[in-house]
Amino acid sequence: MKFNDITEKTLIEEIKKEFLSSKPGLSLGIGDDAAVIKAGKKKFLLTKDLLLDGIHFFKDIHPPRLLGRKSLNASLSDIAAMGGTPLYALLGLGLPEHTSAEWIDGFFTGIKSASEEFDTALAGGDISRAGVLTISVTVIGEGRNIIKRRGARPGDVICVSGKLGDSAQGLQLIKQGAKLGDDQRTDVLLKAFFDPVPQVSLGRIISEKKIASSMIDVSDGLSVDLNHLCEESGAGAEIYAGKIPASNELRFFQKKDREICLHGGEDYSLLFTVPEEKKRRMELLDKEYEISEIGRMIRGRDILLVEENGKREKLEIKGYQHFFR
Amino acid sequence: MKFNDITEKTLIEEIKKEFLSSKPGLSLGIGDDAAVIKAGKKKFLLTKDLLLDGIHFFKDIHPPRLLGRKSLNASLSDIAAMGGTPLYALLGLGLPEHTSAEWIDGFFTGIKSASEEFDTALAGGDISRAGVLTISVTVIGEGRNIIKRRGARPGDVICVSGKLGDSAQGLQLIKQGAKLGDDQRTDVLLKAFFDPVPQVSLGRIISEKKIASSMIDVSDGLSVDLNHLCEESGAGAEIYAGKIPASNELRFFQKKDREICLHGGEDYSLLFTVPEEKKRRMELLDKEYEISEIGRMIRGRDILLVEENGKREKLEIKGYQHFFR
Repeated sequence: MKFNDITEKTLIEEIKKEFLSSKPGLSLGIGDDAAVIKAGKKKFLLTKDLLLDGIHFFKDIHPPRLLGRKSLNASLSDIAAMGGTPLYALLGLGLPEHTSAEWIDGFFTGIKSASEEFDTALAGGDISRAGVLTISVTVIGEGRNIIKRRGARPGDVICVSGKLGDSAQGLQLIKQGAKLGDDQRTDVLLKAFFDPVPQVSLGRIISEKKIASSMIDVSDGLSVDLNHLCEESGAGAEIYAGKIPASNELRFFQKKDREICLHGGEDYSLLFTVPEEKKRRMELLDKEYEISEIGRMIRGRDILLVEENGKREKLEIKGYQHFFR
Repeated sequence: MKFNDITEKTLIEEIKKEFLSSKPGLSLGIGDDAAVIKAGKKKFLLTKDLLLDGIHFFKDIHPPRLLGRKSLNASLSDIAAMGGTPLYALLGLGLPEHTSAEWIDGFFTGIKSASEEFDTALAGGDISRAGVLTISVTVIGEGRNIIKRRGARPGDVICVSGKLGDSAQGLQLIKQGAKLGDDQRTDVLLKAFFDPVPQVSLGRIISEKKIASSMIDVSDGLSVDLNHLCEESGAGAEIYAGKIPASNELRFFQKKDREICLHGGEDYSLLFTVPEEKKRRMELLDKEYEISEIGRMIRGRDILLVEENGKREKLEIKGYQHFFR
């Protein structure tokens, strides 16, 4: 068997089985957005992301400052997805031989700006030479009411923050030659890709107000991440096609925006489920944060897309699967 | 200025200045073997290593199981160097497209074996495709009497555990075509390179018995790591050439073993300093662990090599500097 046959998911399943741990303090291990470690009254969250040039980002088109921000913010989004507060970050950086000092300066300016914006101190790391630019970020956070991927129940309302698809549309425009500064409309979409915003404060409020039964961030695309949430919760879902939030900017470029909203990755929106009796609390939040009710958890394991005319069909699960690209 | 002008050290100095943090809880940040975070009565240690094929290891010659062990053990050595106890690990893995299932199996068998040997639970991570095999390990440990690189004072005795140079000699033999199983003598040296042992229990005992004023692990080579320790402590050192511990196996291959003992990396020995009044405690340890007294801290900033005939000369600082290789 060659590695082409193995998806990230099947490999992680194997590893989960193999490394089942009863280590004291480890209350949630492999397979969620972050691991959870108990220390006295505190719970720490640990998350790690590996980002490689040509696979997770494209150094030549990504402004270094925004790449620095995105590298840290992608991990902060994992902490947000657990309802936690980020505290510290570690940065592993592999730099190709001819990286300019200007690039390094820009990148660290970006790391610093995200680190200040989300009050996350750079605590250490590792720097070395590399064949291709390699970025590895670990973030340590803390949380009280930690929200996992599992916990959603049939009947719970499915909500998502912000708009979907802008980042994927931004990438598409970049591939077609669009640049930051071209015009206001493309800027919205390019910024969504180059400089996405992790929903740290929304995640924390959802946790404090105990609104959600489960949560994940939309990093691989709505269909893939909803599928994770359903699998972990042991339930199905129906998504109302007409309710999926798309921006005017996206609609301008995509007459049929549905595909990109369902399967485009890296929006870093929060996808969460709310039990019926807590819907009121969620609606109060909507005044401050842009939250859309896009579906409902159902019995069984199906994930369905419900058209506005009532037609129901299975939702195809596709999105960022780095192994297959 | 191109990146060739920048060493890891100068870059880390810049980053240290730029990211000086007063974040509550962060008691030691960038620039030691691990960052230290206080949480109530506990102190957590955080360390991160980035390992790249062709730079930090050679996938084609490193048996996958031993590479798995070494990947985790290199980070455990950083925890040992602070006198800490490792608790949890996160693994970031970037796999080239044609990695075989057999390789993956071997690698994870190695991770598991080191994880069990040193009671460190794999708590999570990130897996993706990559151009070259990319391994990123984060280890979280805890410690009470944390031993830093700074703290050594003039007059303190300089000690090192185990033998030096075996790993570098092992690599040299491998480059000449030696293989595991060739004979007992080469096996000792090849194992030192392929499967080095982090000094976790020694580090912990040194911490518990409050023996050392400063400590570091010998990962980049004695001269480079001693230089780190001296710089952080603001003192100099003299090393007695005749006292540097070399194995019989190394001496068999190297009539002049000094160069490789002084500058060969990846031994994962512990290098630490002991105040005169604590020497007795250190000597008691020597019964169980192999510890050599190799020098003394001195006033000033010089690092000197003292020959058996009394001749003193400046010790050249050279060793693993990944940027220059």
